[in-house]
Amino acid sequence: MRISIIEMQDVLEKLFLKYKFNDKQAKTLAEVFTENTLCGVNSHGINRVPLFVEYLEKGLIQIDQIAKKAESFGSIERWDGQHGAGILNAVKCTNRAIELAKLNGMGLVALRNTNHWMRGGFYGHQAADAGCIAILFTNTQPNMPPWGGKESRIGNNPFIIAIPRNEGAIVLDMALSQFSFGKINEYKLKGENLPYPGGWNDNNELTNIPEEILPNERGLPIGYWKGSALSIILDMLATLLSAGDSTFKIGEKPYETGVSQVFLCIYPEVFNDKELQDKLLNEIIAYSQSSAPINPNDKIYYPGERSAAIKKENTKLGIPVNDAVWKNVLALLQK
Amino acid sequence: MRISIIEMQDVLEKLFLKYKFNDKQAKTLAEVFTENTLCGVNSHGINRVPLFVEYLEKGLIQIDQIAKKAESFGSIERWDGQHGAGILNAVKCTNRAIELAKLNGMGLVALRNTNHWMRGGFYGHQAADAGCIAILFTNTQPNMPPWGGKESRIGNNPFIIAIPRNEGAIVLDMALSQFSFGKINEYKLKGENLPYPGGWNDNNELTNIPEEILPNERGLPIGYWKGSALSIILDMLATLLSAGDSTFKIGEKPYETGVSQVFLCIYPEVFNDKELQDKLLNEIIAYSQSSAPINPNDKIYYPGERSAAIKKENTKLGIPVNDAVWKNVLALLQK
Repeated sequence: MRISIIEMQDVLEKLFLKYKFNDKQAKTLAEVFTENTLCGVNSHGINRVPLFVEYLEKGLIQIDQIAKKAESFGSIERWDGQHGAGILNAVKCTNRAIELAKLNGMGLVALRNTNHWMRGGFYGHQAADAGCIAILFTNTQPNMPPWGGKESRIGNNPFIIAIPRNEGAIVLDMALSQFSFGKINEYKLKGENLPYPGGWNDNNELTNIPEEILPNERGLPIGYWKGSALSIILDMLATLLSAGDSTFKIGEKPYETGVSQVFLCIYPEVFNDKELQDKLLNEIIAYSQSSAPINPNDKIYYPGERSAAIKKENTKLGIPVNDAVWKNVLALLQK
Repeated sequence: MRISIIEMQDVLEKLFLKYKFNDKQAKTLAEVFTENTLCGVNSHGINRVPLFVEYLEKGLIQIDQIAKKAESFGSIERWDGQHGAGILNAVKCTNRAIELAKLNGMGLVALRNTNHWMRGGFYGHQAADAGCIAILFTNTQPNMPPWGGKESRIGNNPFIIAIPRNEGAIVLDMALSQFSFGKINEYKLKGENLPYPGGWNDNNELTNIPEEILPNERGLPIGYWKGSALSIILDMLATLLSAGDSTFKIGEKPYETGVSQVFLCIYPEVFNDKELQDKLLNEIIAYSQSSAPINPNDKIYYPGERSAAIKKENTKLGIPVNDAVWKNVLALLQK
């Protein structure tokens, strides 16, 4: 089924008000979950709402807490998320990084004790809409073995880079796993194998068979040893800059809570040549898209182009939602 | 053969003096080429000296030019490399980013019109030695097809993250190609296939056979579509922040010159808890290394650990150098 933006936002806002978020917070939460779904990321949009509510009910997310500044020096600050809602904390810290960037050319907010931010790309767009470049990342629970190892000890640590552009922001939003377990499960449900290896089987061999990967949750980092090293070092940065919990500490908890995140913004308009910058960006896009496609029906996409196209289509036709998921969300509201 | 650090440095310094670099510049160039070789990166150390000299002789590298500031705002600056030696420009811009970071918590220098910096990890160590975190990247000539495309239109854009630590810096230094063409050639010379696919063959299929990859120079990005997107967006950042040449523009030139680079430093000591930071880093290392190795003789490495071990061994035993390469360098000095 397809749901209109207004309806999804309205239902979610009521739901979050029911859980005692204040008016503004309920509205922001509803907007972010709706926008994520609108962009086709249902896994971190509407599909995730029941789990978010479960976290609220378990007290894993503190409804009355929000990130506050802990320390600051010039362009960089440490904030404490106080175990509040990850979305609200991320929106706030992105805004603060934007503010610092407009003052100093660039700004960095390192956030500890926060919760899952759902779709990192949202905050990339938030920064780009304010004219800022953003480099954002979060650590996670362990879900991939470090290269050469058997047990999962590193996170898939989503990594976002966003660049503002008149014709629409360019936004890279990628986890460091080759495939998410959600995506691997989709292949399983379709009865298909992955197009490339995505994790380890019981014999510690790489495999593209979903059924062999899913039980152990030992995912493959992008680029094998390279993504493994990148995951370790992003976890290090998020942890030491925020003085927060690392993937190691997160893995010791019964649920994925209290993660560490970095929000870095750069304000390129300080150079007063926005037109030139857009021209350079468009040249890069045109050049990469001038490569003939291997598959004649294919095209080359710039980062964020697919997501923007999905958003446009869903804005016109309504947001596609799984019937059972929507029923479930409505039931939460009635509960 | 093995060459002592002092001998290599001495020979190279004399060579660069012969090419009319001033005393200080010749010394720095010799130090960087020697250090890169000492760390086992001969491809961007001693093996590369003849090509560097060829660039000097062709006038592609301006011997009497060095990077100078073009624009600045708060924590961020644009510099123009004036087509000087890439190593000298990178050392200078790293120092400037360190300086800005110590003033403001963080600093960014975007550099245009520079040349190949050889091994980016050198500047990562330079920043870490000064107590700074560094995030560094460069664009390059096109050497990989964007995901879904046939022709090479994106660069392998080396990406470096360095973190200072009392027990030795943690330094990730990776190109975005799964294997460099140099590495693929090494496999070819050994008569071996790559352990994983590393590029495209004439039928536009991924292959791990060196002979099928090398003639076309169409490398595979790490993580397939993910590394392709990361390559595009790093090129965009380097280009727009420096107002310099993109991979597109570099590819139009007969030689790889006038590249764009970003030097971002963060000074974590502003938070006055270096001991805690080191503890957090060591916890992350210990945790990742607690994963049992798949191969019982293997171990899990943190980023930069192998390179540090090679440096230690070569410092003791001398630097391994290919006989013909060393003879060639000595001949350049006599020429």
